[in-house]
Amino acid sequence: MSVREPETRPAVRPRVRVHRFEHNPLITPGDVKPHRPDFEVIGAFNAGVTRFRGETLLLLRVAERPKSTDPNIVRVPVWDAKLGELRLETYDVSHGRFDVSDPRSIREISPKGRWHLRYISYLRLARSRDGKRFTIDDEPFLFPGNALESYGVEDPRITEIDGTYYITYSSVSPYGVGVGLARTRDFVTVERLGIVFPPENKDVVLFPERIGGAYYALHRPVPKGMGDPEIWIGKSPDLIHWGDHRPLLGIRPGKWDSLRIGGGAVPIRTPRGWLELYHAADDKNRYCMGAVLLDLADPTQVIARSEDPIFEPEAEYETQGYFGNVVFSCGVLLEGDTLQMYYGAADTSMAYAEMSLREVLDALVPV
Amino acid sequence: MSVREPETRPAVRPRVRVHRFEHNPLITPGDVKPHRPDFEVIGAFNAGVTRFRGETLLLLRVAERPKSTDPNIVRVPVWDAKLGELRLETYDVSHGRFDVSDPRSIREISPKGRWHLRYISYLRLARSRDGKRFTIDDEPFLFPGNALESYGVEDPRITEIDGTYYITYSSVSPYGVGVGLARTRDFVTVERLGIVFPPENKDVVLFPERIGGAYYALHRPVPKGMGDPEIWIGKSPDLIHWGDHRPLLGIRPGKWDSLRIGGGAVPIRTPRGWLELYHAADDKNRYCMGAVLLDLADPTQVIARSEDPIFEPEAEYETQGYFGNVVFSCGVLLEGDTLQMYYGAADTSMAYAEMSLREVLDALVPV
Repeated sequence: MSVREPETRPAVRPRVRVHRFEHNPLITPGDVKPHRPDFEVIGAFNAGVTRFRGETLLLLRVAERPKSTDPNIVRVPVWDAKLGELRLETYDVSHGRFDVSDPRSIREISPKGRWHLRYISYLRLARSRDGKRFTIDDEPFLFPGNALESYGVEDPRITEIDGTYYITYSSVSPYGVGVGLARTRDFVTVERLGIVFPPENKDVVLFPERIGGAYYALHRPVPKGMGDPEIWIGKSPDLIHWGDHRPLLGIRPGKWDSLRIGGGAVPIRTPRGWLELYHAADDKNRYCMGAVLLDLADPTQVIARSEDPIFEPEAEYETQGYFGNVVFSCGVLLEGDTLQMYYGAADTSMAYAEMSLREVLDALVPV
Repeated sequence: MSVREPETRPAVRPRVRVHRFEHNPLITPGDVKPHRPDFEVIGAFNAGVTRFRGETLLLLRVAERPKSTDPNIVRVPVWDAKLGELRLETYDVSHGRFDVSDPRSIREISPKGRWHLRYISYLRLARSRDGKRFTIDDEPFLFPGNALESYGVEDPRITEIDGTYYITYSSVSPYGVGVGLARTRDFVTVERLGIVFPPENKDVVLFPERIGGAYYALHRPVPKGMGDPEIWIGKSPDLIHWGDHRPLLGIRPGKWDSLRIGGGAVPIRTPRGWLELYHAADDKNRYCMGAVLLDLADPTQVIARSEDPIFEPEAEYETQGYFGNVVFSCGVLLEGDTLQMYYGAADTSMAYAEMSLREVLDALVPV
């Protein structure tokens, strides 16, 4: 890996060239068999990624819903922790009592109206020798299993630390959206370690090593009153208990990262600092990827940040889909100077793109 | 202390008799000298309480605002962490650009309209030999000191553990409302230990001892999307880093605790379980105190709960004030069978009431 020393800041910011895989998307909902025959897969996206025993593993977020023929009836799948099985709640949306403007949810139109997700998500493995052609496991890897996951588990990130693979994921339920932690050593069995960030929080990525004796995580609280959905950083002695929380990176009104931002890929160690590829949405809910560089010895310090997105939804599978105009990466691998970005496209499919680490670093602007 | 064993559940639930101090309120804003002459004290309330060297200490939340003669001009005090001093922001509220319906804040009327608190809060000690007549320190004990406290520090709770007094408090800023932790051994110097619960969270009370080797805290997340403002419980090895978060106690639609609930006093060990006196608001923002009993060996387990409030705003100093119809306790001492409740009244003053521990326990209904 060759990384240039920073030079004087150029008048025109260098652009990052993105090379999309010519056979994108890698995985579509049609490639995934639903976990039961009366369900249909509507999304296979936002996968965590890691290398394991010579293979590239994608831990897909698979979203499924009950098959339906009546558009006035929305059947909502809910994990019933007491029964230990999925329960289907039925809502008649023909009477205008529900806001159905968001394809992902229905919401009772009332001051304290409840949300219901229209689908349930779980995590499922796909495996590849070449990083491009994937074989999808027949069974879920991590399925909702308790009351805090009753609406699903979403958007995993995988961080390997000393041979153990730690998985952070959104734990979605009527109690809110929190962040669960699980670990595996073999991608066969998996152990839950509880909720590490209480609601409302998501987009947690663990740094891959201790820094100054402590573990670090990026997280993204969503306050109800004052405050914005921005990236914070926390510390831990053991990956399970977290403290010393500080805001790290904020939204920028009027820009491509104006509405909300959150951690994306697991941070990558480079000679210049920790490189974090993050996602951000603008006021139109268009999701791009950006980059930020953090101090190697003290990742609470921001060194540089991308002024422009490094990656934007442009291909049809990124602009069209269940929720269009979204590129959303939960994991990037580094091979030489090549960043191998696996990313969810339009909340529907998985796709792949490459870019140069050097180009990304050169595009950052000191803050 | 005499505690009866539970008997068969009576047909009529026993009421808890509350004995208000005849000279209530204990401390009013007029008793407190503002920390600078151009400010006025508008609240001295929601104090944490502890016993220390033979005295009862109240750690008051003191709220102050700049004196003003023009009702169209709201001057908002903000701690400027870079300058290390208070800065006054001036807002002209005469043009209808601001929602001023809540006396505590002004809010820009726009889709992403910002809040501004009209006052700044800090923590200040009051000391008493008899628990009733207090002398108020001349200087603040904990004043906003960093960017996460720029709108103030609020609603402290004090938990003594092995001779160290841990203080949890709301840390309020444009980044949101999080929970800070500080500690003191002498109530002269105080050390901050960082944000222990990121936004949006408040009402954190630490249990006064390890249970099964771990520390526990009650906390109250406020999710923006799904989920309600309810009481959660978390675990810690060191009081600074927190994990294994679980929902503990929920709101009850249609009841006195229908809108939001949160921990109040530091939990009290009784032979029947951990007694937590919590606050709750109904849909009209009327704040009462309730009680819940948690398992001694596993405080994540709820044993019993009050069906009715144990304490409601009824006296004039509770129903009238800066924000009326509020009784809000951040600390209760136990003396024999007597619960000595110090509580904020109407977000304005501090008051005192006594009740019988036995009566509170007898009023709880098994869940």
